[in-house]
Amino acid sequence: MPNSFGKLFRITTWGESHGPAVGVVIDGCPPRIAISAEEIQAELDRRRPGQSDIVTPRKEADRVEVLSGIFEGQTTGTPISLLVRNADQRPGAYDEMKDKFRPSHADFTYATKFGIRDHRGGGRSSARETIGRVAAGAIAKKLLRDVQLRAFIVRVHDISMPKNALAEMPTLEQIEATPVRCPHPATAEAMIARIKEVRSAGDSVGGIVECRVAGLPVGLGEPVFDRLEADLAKAMLSLPATKGFEVGSGFGGTLLKGSEHNDLFTNEDGKVRTTSNRSGGVQGGISNGEELVFRVAFKPTATILQSQPTVDTTGAETELMGRGRHDPCVVPRAVPIVEAMTALVLVDHWMRHHAQTQTFAS
Amino acid sequence: MPNSFGKLFRITTWGESHGPAVGVVIDGCPPRIAISAEEIQAELDRRRPGQSDIVTPRKEADRVEVLSGIFEGQTTGTPISLLVRNADQRPGAYDEMKDKFRPSHADFTYATKFGIRDHRGGGRSSARETIGRVAAGAIAKKLLRDVQLRAFIVRVHDISMPKNALAEMPTLEQIEATPVRCPHPATAEAMIARIKEVRSAGDSVGGIVECRVAGLPVGLGEPVFDRLEADLAKAMLSLPATKGFEVGSGFGGTLLKGSEHNDLFTNEDGKVRTTSNRSGGVQGGISNGEELVFRVAFKPTATILQSQPTVDTTGAETELMGRGRHDPCVVPRAVPIVEAMTALVLVDHWMRHHAQTQTFAS
Amino acid sequence: MPNSFGKLFRITTWGESHGPAVGVVIDGCPPRIAISAEEIQAELDRRRPGQSDIVTPRKEADRVEVLSGIFEGQTTGTPISLLVRNADQRPGAYDEMKDKFRPSHADFTYATKFGIRDHRGGGRSSARETIGRVAAGAIAKKLLRDVQLRAFIVRVHDISMPKNALAEMPTLEQIEATPVRCPHPATAEAMIARIKEVRSAGDSVGGIVECRVAGLPVGLGEPVFDRLEADLAKAMLSLPATKGFEVGSGFGGTLLKGSEHNDLFTNEDGKVRTTSNRSGGVQGGISNGEELVFRVAFKPTATILQSQPTVDTTGAETELMGRGRHDPCVVPRAVPIVEAMTALVLVDHWMRHHAQTQTFAS
Amino acid sequence: MPNSFGKLFRITTWGESHGPAVGVVIDGCPPRIAISAEEIQAELDRRRPGQSDIVTPRKEADRVEVLSGIFEGQTTGTPISLLVRNADQRPGAYDEMKDKFRPSHADFTYATKFGIRDHRGGGRSSARETIGRVAAGAIAKKLLRDVQLRAFIVRVHDISMPKNALAEMPTLEQIEATPVRCPHPATAEAMIARIKEVRSAGDSVGGIVECRVAGLPVGLGEPVFDRLEADLAKAMLSLPATKGFEVGSGFGGTLLKGSEHNDLFTNEDGKVRTTSNRSGGVQGGISNGEELVFRVAFKPTATILQSQPTVDTTGAETELMGRGRHDPCVVPRAVPIVEAMTALVLVDHWMRHHAQTQTFAS
Repeated sequence: MPNSFGKLFRITTWGESHGPAVGVVIDGCPPRIAISAEEIQAELDRRRPGQSDIVTPRKEADRVEVLSGIFEGQTTGTPISLLVRNADQRPGAYDEMKDKFRPSHADFTYATKFGIRDHRGGGRSSARETIGRVAAGAIAKKLLRDVQLRAFIVRVHDISMPKNALAEMPTLEQIEATPVRCPHPATAEAMIARIKEVRSAGDSVGGIVECRVAGLPVGLGEPVFDRLEADLAKAMLSLPATKGFEVGSGFGGTLLKGSEHNDLFTNEDGKVRTTSNRSGGVQGGISNGEELVFRVAFKPTATILQSQPTVDTTGAETELMGRGRHDPCVVPRAVPIVEAMTALVLVDHWMRHHAQTQTFAS
Repeated sequence: MPNSFGKLFRITTWGESHGPAVGVVIDGCPPRIAISAEEIQAELDRRRPGQSDIVTPRKEADRVEVLSGIFEGQTTGTPISLLVRNADQRPGAYDEMKDKFRPSHADFTYATKFGIRDHRGGGRSSARETIGRVAAGAIAKKLLRDVQLRAFIVRVHDISMPKNALAEMPTLEQIEATPVRCPHPATAEAMIARIKEVRSAGDSVGGIVECRVAGLPVGLGEPVFDRLEADLAKAMLSLPATKGFEVGSGFGGTLLKGSEHNDLFTNEDGKVRTTSNRSGGVQGGISNGEELVFRVAFKPTATILQSQPTVDTTGAETELMGRGRHDPCVVPRAVPIVEAMTALVLVDHWMRHHAQTQTFAS
Repeated sequence: MPNSFGKLFRITTWGESHGPAVGVVIDGCPPRIAISAEEIQAELDRRRPGQSDIVTPRKEADRVEVLSGIFEGQTTGTPISLLVRNADQRPGAYDEMKDKFRPSHADFTYATKFGIRDHRGGGRSSARETIGRVAAGAIAKKLLRDVQLRAFIVRVHDISMPKNALAEMPTLEQIEATPVRCPHPATAEAMIARIKEVRSAGDSVGGIVECRVAGLPVGLGEPVFDRLEADLAKAMLSLPATKGFEVGSGFGGTLLKGSEHNDLFTNEDGKVRTTSNRSGGVQGGISNGEELVFRVAFKPTATILQSQPTVDTTGAETELMGRGRHDPCVVPRAVPIVEAMTALVLVDHWMRHHAQTQTFAS
Repeated sequence: MPNSFGKLFRITTWGESHGPAVGVVIDGCPPRIAISAEEIQAELDRRRPGQSDIVTPRKEADRVEVLSGIFEGQTTGTPISLLVRNADQRPGAYDEMKDKFRPSHADFTYATKFGIRDHRGGGRSSARETIGRVAAGAIAKKLLRDVQLRAFIVRVHDISMPKNALAEMPTLEQIEATPVRCPHPATAEAMIARIKEVRSAGDSVGGIVECRVAGLPVGLGEPVFDRLEADLAKAMLSLPATKGFEVGSGFGGTLLKGSEHNDLFTNEDGKVRTTSNRSGGVQGGISNGEELVFRVAFKPTATILQSQPTVDTTGAETELMGRGRHDPCVVPRAVPIVEAMTALVLVDHWMRHHAQTQTFAS
């Protein structure tokens, strides 16, 4: 179960960076949803390496193969198995990693926990694991028909999008306009310059992704442990390189008093709305019909093209020179992954909500 | 399942603020653990209302009753049922809440999701639900024998403990020295003053809790979805009034470059250690033997003793005057709750780790 | 989780025979279901000891106390906590059991598994644990509005109801007409005589319960592991003293050829029906709209009022004289328990079916 | 989750009969277990069609492909993905099934539940789904090092192995000596003759599989819902064509009195044993160290080469002539599947038992 996510719309990912393939099985998917391999591929293309000159040059076509659960263009309600072959394997490039632990990577913890590890490209801890999440997320997005779900970048290193730069939720076109996926053109330009600068220096940077979802019904999320924001927090912190999550006012909300922070209810054309959205679209763990807003912090990429002190598998101190093809900043490619995980959480909670409140409603 | 938490050491909480009682059932607890009702009571006393003049004056003895699973002072491996009667019920005090939605509370979302709600004192959304968590956490703490687990306050409103104020993990005595549970005396004093100030104004403030855990083995946490930090994030965001979670370097870590952020491995007396701890004790989702460090943001209490615009259950606009007995700042009482949830996550992952790696080890 | 059952409509039972109480928490219950403590009590009264002269004379009022989740006569969608105090405790009656293992009881396995046991009256292994199941089942039955669900006895020892004795599903009145709960009067009489006979001899007998459910929709159950009959089999084998489960043609079906066993489809007034029901109402793991029919075998009560060879907790051979108040035949009291478990399985699968197929149906 | 089985050692199967492939993902597998593709293949070969002249002539090499989780001949603790391509696809052979419901098959229930079905060869309801179970079971068996686990046939149609024919547990060689997998040669001969006879008549028969497991520790299984026999019952009833399950004395045990049925404890060379085994190796839901013994009833194969009345997808009455290549008796090929499911249940419970009782044992 450590490799599964979701209660009713449940995915299980598998695969290592340099094994034969990576993939996902989606269980519990509603039947009769029209979905094509091309639609899944389109999302995979957004996370694929080699898309632009600010991400890893690793060349992977990452072609999805549909093995089950889709028949004549529609889901059948049975498990959907999706597979992507690992094409660009250069295991030799990772020989040094066999014996040395890369700083701030999972090498040491995997080796100690399991007593064995596939060291090639990080094995299971590689970000290639997220291929399965994005593929499954493509199907989840199809279910969220009338929902607008957008992730985008609001910070790279110390370059942040100005507050209130967005009058409204950015369009997909605005986000995809630049490879850095920041919908504010001037900021995007500065971010790209910074990424190129650190890449030249063999260094790396991190950043912050914001995600907004409009069009949700009131009622998604459960009162106590499975609050909507709790499951989103888990989903986001389950992504490689994440260090923080905040919803609505977040950490900054601690600087306000209750009288400043509360979202007042009002009646807008017969609909209960709030005049502000410091709650970020969830109250008491349950969506309140306002825009869902949260942010995720990604640390700078651990692999840098510099020599760093470390230890080897015997515990002896040594040095390790970063090699291989890596992203100087993972945040742009994290955007479709954040969207995918968000879609998975929302679909799962939607099904749970419906099951409890509608099954026996007369 | 929305009211259950944990996979192997699993708790289910139940109860409403003004119903007969609140409680918890703990399933999967290891047998032969010595535990007394007094030890559970001691933790409950730390979260109890009415402890000091900066928290709610609601008077609840909150006496725990052990109904099953403990026999002659030891756990038996069967479910442990714990119950706390709700003593200080003043349902009349909440009559106005029956028809009006309190701003930034769960009233509106519960009412819409379920089509019914126990409005008295927030019903299920009351922080009294956390009594069950704290009671269960007391047992989890007993299992974590050689582990030091401490939560404390690092910010109230805009008053923060100075960085590096703590040379090492604070002791329980230092934390409990003041009712605000900040181990830095000068900061604690300022925090208390601020809380009294906002209370006088009928307002409220929030803050940040930090939690540190020393003495963990390497290996707790699962590679992909059930990362240790992911399950901690879920645990923390499942608490009422939380808006953010960060581990190690957190959001601030985005301001560093990879060369500044990486934790370098070193050999300390035969043990693999890191020279810094920006990872916060987890790498690749798995504990690395360093101190686990994370922070949780709590918003200002939604209930304020001021009149606020809102709507009633028919959707009509109205005003609501906050009444009742509430904490002007929930953060001090959140400390034992954060500790409890942390202990629950750690025990559960410890059991999972052991099951996978030790059951069939010869 | 070992003490929980169900995925969406999920119950957790707790309590020992001679502890303060036994109980259950029901999580995931749909909101706005009208239910009273009296309705729950009515089901508990059907399983209560001391109902007639063929069951245990243990006197327990078994009054249910509703602690949460029901507000003004309706479920609220939050966990429902139900408690029954253990009134008739005679711990002294069980002193001998402290040191000796009762044959064919759980004493030895509990002691070895956990290294500790509450020996009083069997502790957790007592059939009093099923009180929680019956209480939860009472609520599940309320949800199954248009469903007829009947369990009854078809065999006690070697006395069986004649095949084809029932033209149609028996009514509750027919079943409850005798304390043995066999709806065929002549057979019931013979069964009662047999039970009295073995009771006089200090011995015991077992029997077979049949359960039939009419009015189910087509579609309950999942294709592979969570087939409706698989979850029913688990539910039934989770009851104390059960040794077998069969659905439809069952073990006897192995004596037929395919051409004799197949249920042929026909069109009955526009509805797809089958001309026979050897499938027992499930095909491919999914309800097919025909009557659900299954049977459960219960062994003879292990406690007999005779002296039997056994070992003590040190492993030394000894003798143990059965004492206490026990049912010479558990099968009559098993009837409401079988019904309760059936209702729990059906409600859970109904919710699961609805979630997958209706949530996103336009 | 409907396609997943197990709590800690958890498998998820996927795939349709005439889709590109079928497969399984195994999550939670202990690390450092030596396992080769050949060992998995050996088990698959035992369930493969076309092995002998009494099973279906469908020709499938059923070659397993290992896609993840095994590195340099050992498990790594990460998910193991196994895939088998569907080679012998003759979709045309199933054209008639597109519009007509086969009697006593899953066609009607799938079509009604999901509103769509892959009709080719039964799609997901095909017994090819069990390939994933057998492949996963091969790994589970490797973990059960000192355990003897044997399934074999005790009845085909009305031909049963004589009671007490087996002085002790049969060897694998005795079982595999004939294609019918009954270890009693004379009975096996009669069974084979009967199967050939019904095959000639275009008919089919069912039978009973018995499974025995020796070498288990005391302590596997959970007291209440997750009793060892309850999880075995679920596992067995989750197999296609099963109609019944019994453990130990089973249905026949209802014919005994308590004084005849009880298993008396004795001390055998310092070990607590029972002098009989009507319990079938489980008491109170927990293994007691005696041989685990249970039986599973399989109905006659639903597909027969005869014309049968049925309805089509519009509900109109029609006839359907059975075609395709099918087993006249599934029971011989069910033997490795029953073993696989048993191994999965045992490994899972072993890990659960260890987690609860050993993790924090000092």
